[in-house]
Parts: sequence; C-alpha cells; structure tokens
Amino acid sequence: MTYTAEIIAVGTELLLGGTANTDAQDVSRLLSELGINVYFHTVVGDNPERIKQAIEIAKGRSDIIITTGGLGPTFDDITKQTLAEAFGKKLILNEEVAEKIRAFFAKRLPTLNMTENNLRQAELPEDCVIFDNRVGTAPGCAFEADGKYVLMLPGPPRECREMLKSCVEPYLRKLSEAEIHSHNIHIFGLGESAVEDKLRPLMESMFNPTLAPYAKDGEVMLRLTAKATSKKDADELMAPVLAQVCDVLGDIVYGVDTDSLENTVIGLLVKCGFTLATAESCTGGLLSKRLTDIPGASKVYFGGVVAYSELSKAKLLGVTTELIKEFGVVSSEVALAMADGVRQRLGTDIGVGITGIAGPDSDSSGLEPGTVFIALTTKDKSLCKQPRLFYDRERIRIGAASHALDMIRRLLTESDND
Amino acid sequence: MTYTAEIIAVGTELLLGGTANTDAQDVSRLLSELGINVYFHTVVGDNPERIKQAIEIAKGRSDIIITTGGLGPTFDDITKQTLAEAFGKKLILNEEVAEKIRAFFAKRLPTLNMTENNLRQAELPEDCVIFDNRVGTAPGCAFEADGKYVLMLPGPPRECREMLKSCVEPYLRKLSEAEIHSHNIHIFGLGESAVEDKLRPLMESMFNPTLAPYAKDGEVMLRLTAKATSKKDADELMAPVLAQVCDVLGDIVYGVDTDSLENTVIGLLVKCGFTLATAESCTGGLLSKRLTDIPGASKVYFGGVVAYSELSKAKLLGVTTELIKEFGVVSSEVALAMADGVRQRLGTDIGVGITGIAGPDSDSSGLEPGTVFIALTTKDKSLCKQPRLFYDRERIRIGAASHALDMIRRLLTESDND
Repeated sequence: MTYTAEIIAVGTELLLGGTANTDAQDVSRLLSELGINVYFHTVVGDNPERIKQAIEIAKGRSDIIITTGGLGPTFDDITKQTLAEAFGKKLILNEEVAEKIRAFFAKRLPTLNMTENNLRQAELPEDCVIFDNRVGTAPGCAFEADGKYVLMLPGPPRECREMLKSCVEPYLRKLSEAEIHSHNIHIFGLGESAVEDKLRPLMESMFNPTLAPYAKDGEVMLRLTAKATSKKDADELMAPVLAQVCDVLGDIVYGVDTDSLENTVIGLLVKCGFTLATAESCTGGLLSKRLTDIPGASKVYFGGVVAYSELSKAKLLGVTTELIKEFGVVSSEVALAMADGVRQRLGTDIGVGITGIAGPDSDSSGLEPGTVFIALTTKDKSLCKQPRLFYDRERIRIGAASHALDMIRRLLTESDND
Repeated sequence: MTYTAEIIAVGTELLLGGTANTDAQDVSRLLSELGINVYFHTVVGDNPERIKQAIEIAKGRSDIIITTGGLGPTFDDITKQTLAEAFGKKLILNEEVAEKIRAFFAKRLPTLNMTENNLRQAELPEDCVIFDNRVGTAPGCAFEADGKYVLMLPGPPRECREMLKSCVEPYLRKLSEAEIHSHNIHIFGLGESAVEDKLRPLMESMFNPTLAPYAKDGEVMLRLTAKATSKKDADELMAPVLAQVCDVLGDIVYGVDTDSLENTVIGLLVKCGFTLATAESCTGGLLSKRLTDIPGASKVYFGGVVAYSELSKAKLLGVTTELIKEFGVVSSEVALAMADGVRQRLGTDIGVGITGIAGPDSDSSGLEPGTVFIALTTKDKSLCKQPRLFYDRERIRIGAASHALDMIRRLLTESDND
C-alpha cells in the first residue's frame, strides 16, 4: 500500500516569521524518496488547544503523522504531552534516556546546573521506539496507535536532519514495500535551466528512475531516483541513465554521491599526493574554511593567508607595492603573485590566489562588485581566471571560492590523465 | 478587535521538499508586525479536493485567509477557482488586467507566443480588490465574503514579497488597530535553558510585552515583542522590560537589535579605532570568514594566517619548533605565540590565535576533540582561554570562532570603560 503522511511543525516562531519551515522540507524530501505521499504540512504555535486541533485533523486524513519541534525542556514544549493524550498514551520517564541527559550535563556542562526541566526530555510515550539524538539532548520517538504511525522529531534543523537520516529513514523504510534508491550527481559551472535544457529529451521520457534538479549556492545537483523491490534492481535501473547523464554533461559533473566541491578536492589532493596553500583577499578565509570543513584536510592543506590589506599582501605574501601600483590590487598579476607567494612560502605543490571586489560597494578604482581574479600556480604552470560573479556579497564570495575549488579539481583531474 | 489569520500555500513542489515555504515566513512576518495573530500555516498540493478541504478548515477558524501560489497560467493553477467557488463568487475576465498581460508579452517576450491560458490570469473573483504584480504577470486579489477576508498572492517568492509590501500591507493595515514592535536581545555565553531559568520569574508574569528565546549556533536570542496602538506606546511598554532583562543577564548580552557577534566586533573596532589580525589553526579560516562577512571589515581587519600545519605556524607566524615541542601544538603557549606573531607581522593593535582539535578524531597526543586554546594579545596585555566546546567538528569550530569574537568584544568594552 502507499501511505499518506502529514507533517505538523510546532513552534510559534514559525508563525511569527522568524524562520522558514525547513524541517518540513527535509522531512518531505525523505518521504518522497521513500515513496510516501505527503498531502499536507501544518504549522501550529506552542498552544495545546491548537496543537490538539491540528492532530485531530491529521488523524482523520493521514496514515503517518510526523511532528517537528516542541520536544525541548522548556514549559512551552508540549508536543509529546499533547500527542500522547490525543492517542491515549501515558508519558513515562525513560531511565536510560534520563541517564544520558544527566551524563551529558555532567560531562560537557559541569559548570551549568542541569535544571530539573531538562529531565522532561526523558519522558516518552509508553511503548514507543526511541530515536536517539546524536547532536542534541531531546530524543525523538515513534509509536503506533489507532492504526496510525506517529513520529516526533526535534525542531532544531541540524538535529531533525541527523535524526531523519539515522533513525527515521530506517524506521519508515520498513513500512514501504518498494525500496527507493538514489544517486546524487553534482554539477558546477552551468545553471539549473541550462542543465535541464541539455537533459530535457532524456527527462521527458523518464518514469522510473526519475531525475530531479536542485539548485543551491551556484551549484546544481541532480537526484536520480529509482523505485524497485531491491537495491540490486534499483541499481540496474539507474546504471544506464547515470552513465548517459554523465556523458551528456561531461566534465561539469564534479562528483556522484559526493558531499561538496571541497570534499572532491581534498580527495583528489590525497589521491594525487599533492599539497595546497591558499592566499585570499575578497573571500576572506572562506576558501580556507571550506577546505578545512573536511576532516583530515591537514594532510594536504598546509594553510593560507587572508591578505585583507595591501600591507598583509606585502608582509605575508611578498606582493610588492610596485606590482599593485602597476596593475591594481584587483588584477590577474596580483592574483598570480599571491598564489605563488603562498605556494613558495609554505612549499606546497599548488598555490591559489584570489583577489576581487565582494561588494556591496565598488572599490576606489571604480571596479564593480563581482570583479574577481582567481590564480592557480604550480612549479611549472600558472593560470588565472575571471569568472562571472554577481548578485550580492555573500554569493560573490561563495562563487569565487567555488570557482577556485573547481580550478583545482580540473588541474588535478588533468594531471591524473597525463 | 484582533484578527486571526491563516496562511495556505498551494503547491505540490513544497510537499515534495523541493523548496522551503519562505512565502509563509514573509507573510507571517508582515502580519506579526501588523498585530494580526497567525495561528496556522497549511501547505497543500495542486489538488482541487484537498485545497477545498484546507479552505473549509480555515473558514471555520480564521478571520483572514491568505493563500500563496497557484495563480499562474497552467492547468494545475487552481487556487482562484477553488476559493471563488468556496465563497460563492464568480470569476470574471478583467479587461484591464488582460490588456496588461497582452502588453507584457508583446513587450518583453515577443519571441514567445502568448498562449490563451495566459489570459486565465486575468480572470478574477467578482467585487475583488486587485493587487498589481509589478514583477510578474499573475495579479493577486482580495475579497470579503461570509465575514472573512480572503487574499490571494502569487507563489514565486520575489513576486509574493513585492506584493506584500506594495499592496497587502496597506490593505491589512486598515483592518488592524494594534501595531506590533519588537527588540532582539543577543546573548553569548549561556545556554537557552539557563537563560530562561534566570528570566523565569520575569517571563511568567509577562503578558504584553512578551519574551521568547531562540537558540542557534551556540547563541541565544530573546525576542521582546509588544502590541500597542502606536510605535511610541510599544516602545514605552518595552523599555523597562528591556532594561530589566539586560540588567539580569549582565555582560552576556552582546547586543540589542544587532546582527551577529562579528557585526558587534567590527562595530566596536571601528568605534575604538583598533585594528585586528588573526592566526587560526583548527578554525581554519572560519573566524576570518565571519569577520569579512561584514561589509567594510577591511577598515579594521588587516588579515590573518590559517596555520594548518606546524610548518605554516613557523613560516608565517614565527612559532618555533622548540615551543611546539615543549608545550605541544595545542597549548596556551602556542596560541599566545600565534596571536602575537600575527599581531606583530601585520602591525595591528590586537592579535588573536586559535589552536585546537576540531575532530572528529583525537590528535596524536591523545587530546580530545573540543580541546581549543584561544589567545588575545595587545601591546600590553595577553590572555588565553580554553572554552568548553563539544558536539561535532562543525560546532566546535563555530564555538571556537564565537568565543574568540566574544573575547575581542569583552576586551574592547573593557577598554571602553577604562
């Protein structure tokens, strides 16, 4: 059978417009991958009467009810109480969970007094499956009652997302007869509609597997999803399509089932045995931050310089005042000198230099925000690129860092083929 | 009277998790500013039966019903038809709107044939107020029926946002007598439940204004909100409570109505005329990235070093191998040497040094992830702190950068008081 689900987000802050309901999006995406139909999202405040009303409506029309939020320790966190009541379940203090919460406070926050209300998080509906919260204190849970499946997840997006992956997906997968499997195809260097244009003939004739594009932070991800009775069957359905998509798109595909450009780059550096150093001006450390987001980056990434002033470009990278005077601080010449300065100082195989205008204002020489030069140097090679960047400060910075990563990726995959 | 409102977003893509419901957030924020209580958000797919069901439920519990989405030209855009039917209104082709749509296509998209279904966008409920769409083709509208106010807005976030500002706000302002105003109080250095504990006596007796805590990235924000007939009255209601909250919490309040710790720090540096340089190990450029997120940071932030290897600590900061051997690379001595190394090299007033283990694994000397030393030096002062950091790599890094920012803030506000 195909189940229908409804997502109820509990939290007055959502109704005040303080934040968007990203939990519902995350839950929906998982359910759609599992082949469960989501027919409604509801958002309701921290108000017992209205939460009850939302639950009664959901009981009348959905097989699976998933709530997010309201599991915390404070007095306005009442999701569990209200749901337990609506389904005639008692809340029972779970000693194991209580012990974990006590241990959490004892170990990590000994200077904070654990207040008694923190233990309310250990009160759970009788006969429930507990969803461990690996990144916070409030556990989630699931129970079956009145022919319905009820799941409660924490509201903070990181906690909700982690629990979806580690607990909810396996729990719900058991309900569904078909298995859903997917591949994520990561693309950099082409926009969403251009990618869709290239794939339209292919996509229009597809039914199973399906292909859906998602755009984020200047990248495009395609999710290829197949429904089958086993992983093997799903893989067999997907394999030819995956090959065809990668063939059509060529080298703008930077990875399949990878996490990010930075992940791909660190992986390639490790594989090739190459080391890297960075010199950043307008990105202000963002490239370095993204590289070091990846555990183990220190094996191949030796460090970098954030040269946010002419002085720091001179002192830390040896970029001369003469060069800056001649070509301007935002120029391919300065980007190349920055890249080579940091490469030589740290003795790495590859050096990256980024200089540009992130905005919001133009610089004193009248260069527009989005004017960015990115240089890459090795012992024998040097190249520089001026990508098209626009919109706002944040997107210009993200775009510049992504282009730098993509240039490193291309350099390393070239040398790979040599 | 105080009106209650409900927002119904129409669109299957929201239920598939392709995008978050940011329209509901935008509408909610406006309504909360206008003193209209939003009690529910609903999301429903492009399905006539289920849209009708959502409308019937909303009719039974809300004075104002605002829909977003489903106003476009395609066959699955059925919001207007369904709402008109639910309230016994006819749809009538509005010649003025039709003319605008024809002109739009003639002028901007002459290469596209305007299909007849584009004119469906000009069919509007009888006796409605038309909301002009300045950034797209589908107009919005509002009508009164059965004692309810019904508003329909387009789904694309840009169009919805523009219409909220130019049409919906003036329309709704006429309905509302009260205004809502708020202050955001930003806190670093204490968890959400501990903050609430300190404020519980105050919060429990509050009715107007109200105080609500939000936790994010290791910080807590309190939103103080008052409802009154004018901004002046709201300010008068809030002023004593704001003073009391700041008094109870003391110097863990880093700002009121500010954006972030980094914003506060850049503002203080500018105000005090001090300059800053950073030397980061485990945070890998995150501190630098956060500082340079703020436009104009270059006036006071000269740059920094990401010293992700012992070699880069030596070459770029002058931290000697002997010092590292004697105390270990993760030590207060090395943090202080990093801070002073970068401060002296770039000639700034303040230097920051961060060294530690971000995880997920312990380092070779067995130090646990979360062991982080943060040093601050000036010409005459030097201090070092080992904050308690835990959870995962991402939060250890965010926490370390936030503690460094908070140390700078405290240093600058101290010197402010000297």
